Amino acid sequence: MRTLAGSLRKEHVNQEVTLKGWVQKRRDLGEIIFIDLRDRSGVVQIVFNAENSKETHAIGDSVRSEYVIEVKGKVVERDGETVNPKIDTGDIEIIVSDINVLNEAKTPPFTLTDDIDISEEIRLKYRYLDLRREVMQETFKLRHQATQSIRGFLNNEAFLEMETPMLTKSTPEGARDYLVPSRVHEGYFYALPQSPQLFKQLLMVAGFEKYYQFARCFRDEDLRADRQPEFTQIDIETSFMSMDDILEMTERMMKKVMKDVKGLDIETPFHRMPYDEAMERFGSDKPDVRFDMELVNLSEIVKESGFKVFRQAVENGGKVSAINLKGKADDYSRKDLDNMTDFAKIYGAKGLAWLKVEEEALVGPIAKFFSEEEQAQFRSMLDANAGDLLFFVADKKQVVFDTLGALRMKLAKDHDLIDESKFAFLWITNWPLLEYDEEEGRYHAAHHPFTMPFEADFDKLDTNPGEVRAQAYDLVLNGYELGGGSLRIYQREMQNQMFEKLGFTKEEAESQFGFLLEALEYGAPPHGGIALGFDRFIMLLAGRTNLRDTILFPKTASASDPMTDAPSSVSTKQLNELHLKLK
Amino acid sequence: MRTLAGSLRKEHVNQEVTLKGWVQKRRDLGEIIFIDLRDRSGVVQIVFNAENSKETHAIGDSVRSEYVIEVKGKVVERDGETVNPKIDTGDIEIIVSDINVLNEAKTPPFTLTDDIDISEEIRLKYRYLDLRREVMQETFKLRHQATQSIRGFLNNEAFLEMETPMLTKSTPEGARDYLVPSRVHEGYFYALPQSPQLFKQLLMVAGFEKYYQFARCFRDEDLRADRQPEFTQIDIETSFMSMDDILEMTERMMKKVMKDVKGLDIETPFHRMPYDEAMERFGSDKPDVRFDMELVNLSEIVKESGFKVFRQAVENGGKVSAINLKGKADDYSRKDLDNMTDFAKIYGAKGLAWLKVEEEALVGPIAKFFSEEEQAQFRSMLDANAGDLLFFVADKKQVVFDTLGALRMKLAKDHDLIDESKFAFLWITNWPLLEYDEEEGRYHAAHHPFTMPFEADFDKLDTNPGEVRAQAYDLVLNGYELGGGSLRIYQREMQNQMFEKLGFTKEEAESQFGFLLEALEYGAPPHGGIALGFDRFIMLLAGRTNLRDTILFPKTASASDPMTDAPSSVSTKQLNELHLKLK
Repeated sequence: MRTLAGSLRKEHVNQEVTLKGWVQKRRDLGEIIFIDLRDRSGVVQIVFNAENSKETHAIGDSVRSEYVIEVKGKVVERDGETVNPKIDTGDIEIIVSDINVLNEAKTPPFTLTDDIDISEEIRLKYRYLDLRREVMQETFKLRHQATQSIRGFLNNEAFLEMETPMLTKSTPEGARDYLVPSRVHEGYFYALPQSPQLFKQLLMVAGFEKYYQFARCFRDEDLRADRQPEFTQIDIETSFMSMDDILEMTERMMKKVMKDVKGLDIETPFHRMPYDEAMERFGSDKPDVRFDMELVNLSEIVKESGFKVFRQAVENGGKVSAINLKGKADDYSRKDLDNMTDFAKIYGAKGLAWLKVEEEALVGPIAKFFSEEEQAQFRSMLDANAGDLLFFVADKKQVVFDTLGALRMKLAKDHDLIDESKFAFLWITNWPLLEYDEEEGRYHAAHHPFTMPFEADFDKLDTNPGEVRAQAYDLVLNGYELGGGSLRIYQREMQNQMFEKLGFTKEEAESQFGFLLEALEYGAPPHGGIALGFDRFIMLLAGRTNLRDTILFPKTASASDPMTDAPSSVSTKQLNELHLKLK
Repeated sequence: MRTLAGSLRKEHVNQEVTLKGWVQKRRDLGEIIFIDLRDRSGVVQIVFNAENSKETHAIGDSVRSEYVIEVKGKVVERDGETVNPKIDTGDIEIIVSDINVLNEAKTPPFTLTDDIDISEEIRLKYRYLDLRREVMQETFKLRHQATQSIRGFLNNEAFLEMETPMLTKSTPEGARDYLVPSRVHEGYFYALPQSPQLFKQLLMVAGFEKYYQFARCFRDEDLRADRQPEFTQIDIETSFMSMDDILEMTERMMKKVMKDVKGLDIETPFHRMPYDEAMERFGSDKPDVRFDMELVNLSEIVKESGFKVFRQAVENGGKVSAINLKGKADDYSRKDLDNMTDFAKIYGAKGLAWLKVEEEALVGPIAKFFSEEEQAQFRSMLDANAGDLLFFVADKKQVVFDTLGALRMKLAKDHDLIDESKFAFLWITNWPLLEYDEEEGRYHAAHHPFTMPFEADFDKLDTNPGEVRAQAYDLVLNGYELGGGSLRIYQREMQNQMFEKLGFTKEEAESQFGFLLEALEYGAPPHGGIALGFDRFIMLLAGRTNLRDTILFPKTASASDPMTDAPSSVSTKQLNELHLKLK
């Protein structure tokens, strides 16, 4: 019987054990060789003593890092001074009586420690080695625990885990599909699902009432650090539940997983913040509320001020807001502050105004434009004290929000204002149902075209579509959108109306979503749900910053896998069978 | 608060409840209307009485089958004679005081009962209605239970649930891949995985030791009743475990799921039958052992007999075997028996000989060729008594096995010899490692090229590859292959040798499997695993005969979905982005 290395303690002293695992580290003191033997449970020190057996010692002498070995030996207590309190097994060691080399190993291309400094390309090429590092092992154990915790919760709530298809139909709405050519149907393609949205709604029509799935989803979009071509979402749909029911249930789920995985008691209910308020106060629809530095709307104060830039912004229907970086005025030279205009420009702002707060006055190039009374109002509204630094943006509403929202995050990171041990959950509610696309001159669904408006807003669908609010909600954690959901439209008439608003012709709606529209005619129950990005959630739980560290075999930014070399060329025979030619 | 319809019992009498669900059935007795209200938990009878409220009665009068309604009412005990013992809620009914129609429903295109007789095409087109039928609801509840039971077992055994990629690399070995064109890498393709085989092996190299996944797999092959383009397998891989360990663990897993899902105590260990024995006794590598009718090898007896056909079959290196259909001789006319030759021909046999057993003699066209002594031996070896019917095939070994194996199954079904309540598990072991492909003049891997041979057979790899046995095993249930696995090759040298035997050039091996070969050089542990077809397992557990009844949204035999119309045409823009042209 094999014993796990990491399980050995003082109480096992004098036991004969068999261990199997990897050579983590080897210290050769001549007659005595120490090896740290690693397996999935941890590490234990094993000792080869030439006095006991020359043969065993010789083999111990020949093994190298990452060799796979099997050893038999006796557990002995370590001498006081050699106890290693850094590892769980540090009170004991194993005196090896027999060793068997199961497999050899070349020297790995990088050291398998937590703090490595090599390119991600190399890490991904040798992913099977990268994954041996303790931080990676821990991340995927955590991922497993989170998976089971969530499943346990949902099973307990009488949800059924159900599998929806991967070979589905392409729809032009939303992101770009990954396509799969059909061999049997010449010129036709399947699409890999961007989400199981339609299938989960159909499962509600089918009467299952409570569905969940850890669903693999696909989007063929250009990648960023927090995007992958395939990702996993916790996909949930229910019938006959209100928005409150769904939010409350999700909160209990989060409470459980935070307790199970992190040992933390988080407070519920989560604060619910309307979309407009989130934008107004944080300049973001996924605010990080672990720190303050909120946006303050100064439009009323500056609309008749002597500063034309501010005055005109308000006159033109825009606004002026500011944030207060407390106590850091001295950290910035005038040149530093001028340079920050470049940052503001990324978000479309024409400029970034600033004022340093001194005991007596506000100081900076724009100070002269404001009366004493206006300056006093700045101080009071921004809670400004000597040493503070104020940043102002005057522009269209969205630009003000985007710029100050991003600046707020940048300053918090630069000055280490965020308590990284905190997990701050937040609901964003009252989303706009539709967004006007100036380029295309039509409305787009802000979430997706199956989202239910608030009943009170039904009338506005015709008169003022931009003001209709959706029964939709996003769950935000530490400034990341964990996911979101909505109640869905469940009556054909309203779904028709929605497609019309979105500029679909009857034929387009029919050809793309005819089956859903038809399903709504056969007794569709009121339903809704939520989908949470599981990879991102794990990233936050594990305290990582790169989504790729939470996925076993991720793709690079160019959507390739340096290990297997996927994607790769295929044979002409394969292409012929699929009725395809390369262009 | 909503109450579930199926949960109501006598003890709830006098309670006021709110129910939400579907109108299953409606009986209109004028002043009184009875409706069977269905939700996910079951059915309850609700009563509209015009005496109580004309308004409510009028709405009750207006609803039709599959309308979605919300009702409030009081639970009352039914009169003795109206108690319905067929349903769990049959002791009570609900006197409705209020009703709200949540959604209307057109008349479904077929009745939503268990015994429907409509084309599968229509069932799949309206899958959301088909799934409302009780038998389908029960199947997917069972699937959920089995999923959780298996997960529970594996979690408890310290396995980690891990997700391997769907966008992988195409390899020419094995079945045909589904391909996914890359937008970023012109002319390149991903492949959807036929199984996570290589990734799970790499997870062992990465040191995780215990992996599992309910893995979606894809094969672009022509479909049969028990094949789907995408299917789910329980995918398991372990390090440092012996074949015995893996078999024993799988048996415990099966024992648990059979108990959890079916309430059955099945016996373990499962019988282990070498491949050769399975072929010899049952003519199949996945024998149904719920009944006997075993093949009996008569070669020794007939090799010098007067029947040239039999004698020559043995002389040419083939064999003669027979099965005994007990007590059914009178069911078959001579013409019936002659017609069965057509069945035998499907499996490549030139003919099917038969003899009826009478008290005094064996009777049939070939009886005259056999001496009394030979006939006595037939009787004794086949345990033949008056009324039995014997079938003989004389041919090459494989043809004899295939024909009699198939005939054995057909006869068992025709004569209802199988106890359908039984679950007969069986291991098939000692598989050939390699199969010679006469057409291509080379060996193929019988399982896959990573399968480990038995150590005792290592030498034969060079001298007699066809005789090398693999450390591989299949799990058979009721005549179906549930799945299988093997120990894997974990040393580069042997893997090189294996690719060589399979006719790979060094370059081919390198370009297709270079990453695996390289991984084996960095301390790969001994490892192995198993993969079980989950859809098929559910089919057997649920007592269904069609794999499509165990998959929520399956494809038709031509790999299409009549509901969504997938696959479908895509836009030229989409094709252009993928650098593709239709031929």
